[in-house]
Amino acid sequence: MRSRAAVAFEAGKPLEITEVEVEGPREGEVLVEIRATGICHTDDFTLSGADPEGIFPSILGHEGAGVVVDVGPGVKSVRKGDHVIPLYTPECRECPSCLSRKTNLCTAIRATQGQGLMPDGTTRFRTLDGDPIHHYMGCSTFSNYTVLPEIAVAKIREDAPFDKVCYVGCGVTTGVGAVLNTAKVEPGATAIVFGLGGIGLNVIQGLRLAGADMIIGVDVNPAKKEWGERFGMTHFVNPAEVGGELVPHLVNLTKRGADQIGGADYTFDCTGNVQVMRAALESAHRGWGVSVIIGVAPAGAEISTRPFQLVTGRVWKGTAFGGARGRTDVPRIVDWYMDGKIEIDPMITHLLPLERINEGFEMMHAGTSIRSVVVY
Amino acid sequence: MRSRAAVAFEAGKPLEITEVEVEGPREGEVLVEIRATGICHTDDFTLSGADPEGIFPSILGHEGAGVVVDVGPGVKSVRKGDHVIPLYTPECRECPSCLSRKTNLCTAIRATQGQGLMPDGTTRFRTLDGDPIHHYMGCSTFSNYTVLPEIAVAKIREDAPFDKVCYVGCGVTTGVGAVLNTAKVEPGATAIVFGLGGIGLNVIQGLRLAGADMIIGVDVNPAKKEWGERFGMTHFVNPAEVGGELVPHLVNLTKRGADQIGGADYTFDCTGNVQVMRAALESAHRGWGVSVIIGVAPAGAEISTRPFQLVTGRVWKGTAFGGARGRTDVPRIVDWYMDGKIEIDPMITHLLPLERINEGFEMMHAGTSIRSVVVY
Repeated sequence: MRSRAAVAFEAGKPLEITEVEVEGPREGEVLVEIRATGICHTDDFTLSGADPEGIFPSILGHEGAGVVVDVGPGVKSVRKGDHVIPLYTPECRECPSCLSRKTNLCTAIRATQGQGLMPDGTTRFRTLDGDPIHHYMGCSTFSNYTVLPEIAVAKIREDAPFDKVCYVGCGVTTGVGAVLNTAKVEPGATAIVFGLGGIGLNVIQGLRLAGADMIIGVDVNPAKKEWGERFGMTHFVNPAEVGGELVPHLVNLTKRGADQIGGADYTFDCTGNVQVMRAALESAHRGWGVSVIIGVAPAGAEISTRPFQLVTGRVWKGTAFGGARGRTDVPRIVDWYMDGKIEIDPMITHLLPLERINEGFEMMHAGTSIRSVVVY
Repeated sequence: MRSRAAVAFEAGKPLEITEVEVEGPREGEVLVEIRATGICHTDDFTLSGADPEGIFPSILGHEGAGVVVDVGPGVKSVRKGDHVIPLYTPECRECPSCLSRKTNLCTAIRATQGQGLMPDGTTRFRTLDGDPIHHYMGCSTFSNYTVLPEIAVAKIREDAPFDKVCYVGCGVTTGVGAVLNTAKVEPGATAIVFGLGGIGLNVIQGLRLAGADMIIGVDVNPAKKEWGERFGMTHFVNPAEVGGELVPHLVNLTKRGADQIGGADYTFDCTGNVQVMRAALESAHRGWGVSVIIGVAPAGAEISTRPFQLVTGRVWKGTAFGGARGRTDVPRIVDWYMDGKIEIDPMITHLLPLERINEGFEMMHAGTSIRSVVVY
């Protein structure tokens, strides 16, 4: 069948809106009509050419929501008409990773997904001239119709609006999940969030949901103060306005009551900047502070610190997809949105038709959007 | 009173065996007759001058056992005649750190201890000429008589031999505690221990106690194979004999059954070498591997890695005194030794009188001892 799509033919070039040929689902696969998709920094990272694992031509996009329109042989967990969110982190429930109960990083289809292919090693996308186009993060939500492995779709409730819950496919789950699944923040905790973009704001609302006492947001853009406060931030720190070094300032800010050691119980990097990751670790509390890396660093960049920081009790960890098991946790997060426990609407600052998808990237670069969503 | 002691008058010089003047215990302090003391790498680190926080002249030694011979006003938890192990990590049970239930790093007397002084800001040691000598790590077990805060002694059973359980004052607790308190290793786990010195061997026996399936020891000294096996090591890897890179070799070695991802559930650095710390992190299992830094790195040295290692689920942490609360956990570890659950005797390779203490440092440098113990 034919589908409208925004194709990344070349690194560093705008996406090209065109028709592509989509092959129907094979065994264990489903065909999904994408109704809406967010535009995420990771798409931009790959499109820019900075991603060493980027493959072209490909159909980007990994933050979508849609409806199952066809299923291949053997598919049992979803059927035509089901509303689903594509999962770039699948959940097979059979591999050693899924069975470990310790990680969400299902490894069932990791190798082929990284190659831009379906699990059988082929692609379902072609140009109208018949040239193959690669999948991206196993999702390719910048095509109106896309094919996914059954284990890479989360079935969600049918009353959830596509143009909002598509954001659960990446940003919301990553931010809220980092707080609940990876850091396991408890009520009364202190926390610092570095970088108040689409991920950082979701970390903030995750902290509010977890009952944190002190939610400090750090961003060089003063306009982010209002954004952070909207989702539960209690203190805003602009590093440019701190008279002195940032880490001691934050450590001081988190001293309270009898605890005059300072440092936050939990810190989160949402910037991808390795210097910020270090500051996040070092502003965690001596003895027990946990620092979680969420941001994606440039290729080859390394984090570093003195080991003394860890020997004195700080813990350095990271999270991918917020530690969430896609098929199990994503429907629950959609429920939280529908129940008003978390917010999404105010973060979706722009809705665009597919034809204007490149404007979404431009607004991201300009910092004028939190999340732009393409509606098919 | 007078006490025999080995005094560090100057960095880089051998200890000087001499008599010193020891003032009696003040409020909240106890006078302890040290019966035996181990010689640890940390003493050597400070004596060498490499420790930026080293203070001279001082009385080193922090791995002792002895008997309370006098108590100052207000002391309630121990009395004359009690057998005790001095604690360089005290346990006041009142500070925010102790009350957090999340760390063993009591902060009650941290500032003065770091300055080589008792909590009231003075020293109890003087030369016979009346010049002050500093305390070290709050212990100074290289003096036959030493003064300690009440919160810095662990009362132990009276039938435990001093020349063995002194080792619980640092090495045993650090190694076994890193496994049980910091890593919380579970039965069936896989583990890699880097560096099979006095700490590494205690990590190995901690892993055996915890029921680990696979206990891999890594050391460049082939003589350590027999030592590791003695305490439960199941595999030995000499990096010099691996044809290729160490990390992939270890990852391959830990593949088992359906899990062909590889990497150990838990890894431990017992070397203090920041390159080894990196290898330890990167040979931890994708998704959930925990890497624990135990070794003390040279001043200014930094650890580094790609953040991707953490984002894909590895956790980097550290431990001091094995995460053990001194007064609560040390007596229990002494019981384990007396009950045969852990071994100490074979690790004590040399007993020396105080007069020969410098020989103990020489054997440590030559790698011919696991632990030398000075018996007063």
